Amino acid sequence: MVEESQNTLKVAHQAFEYFRHGLATGEWNQFIDTLTDDFTFWFPVGPYHGLNVGKERAIAFFQYVSETFGEGLSLTLDRVTSNETTVVFEFRDEGIMGGKPYKNRVAISFDIRGDKICGYREYFGSDGKSN
Amino acid sequence: MVEESQNTLKVAHQAFEYFRHGLATGEWNQFIDTLTDDFTFWFPVGPYHGLNVGKERAIAFFQYVSETFGEGLSLTLDRVTSNETTVVFEFRDEGIMGGKPYKNRVAISFDIRGDKICGYREYFGSDGKSN
Repeated sequence: MVEESQNTLKVAHQAFEYFRHGLATGEWNQFIDTLTDDFTFWFPVGPYHGLNVGKERAIAFFQYVSETFGEGLSLTLDRVTSNETTVVFEFRDEGIMGGKPYKNRVAISFDIRGDKICGYREYFGSDGKSN
Repeated sequence: MVEESQNTLKVAHQAFEYFRHGLATGEWNQFIDTLTDDFTFWFPVGPYHGLNVGKERAIAFFQYVSETFGEGLSLTLDRVTSNETTVVFEFRDEGIMGGKPYKNRVAISFDIRGDKICGYREYFGSDGKSN
């Protein structure tokens, strides 16, 4: 149980660093490599609102994110909680969207299977204008 | 460490049951009793958007929530993650707002100090129309 939890945390932390790198740079390959083929994600707003199924859909989404935030998003990690299979990262992000300052508070919950991310749920804690 | 984590989880689970009871019934006294005097909370939208400080502010907020959802909100708990001081509950909720069906996905992150909740952050994972 403890070993499983430790592996889950380790996999999630590595994936989160790749996720952070993707948001900052638009380079998503390392993060995409950590996803299972049957990967699913939930997103709160916009054209990807709701449940999204499959790795191809994820690839399209991350391209869309990096087009939306052309100069990248920078993250400040505040808290990490976990159990045997799930790790939640609470962070604040900041960047430029459509020429205007963008700021938000975010919780992202990764589900881990083995050494991969098999799904996540993203939640917004603010309005895109303050964090 | 393990004992501290177990107490944190126990306190948070009890508080979450009082929170669920408050949302369902509009009776918030038990939940309010679990909050420290210097309690703070972050809320994503509306008149309580951002950081809210103090127990009095919390009491006003929960009254506002129960006025907004006059028939109550029912919760389905999906996942719980934790560390020594923080516990995150991911759930879906459902009710009636302004005569129309309301549904959302929510993550709420409780910070525990001793046997009390000293703060929380709420995050929305959907649009109020689907969960």
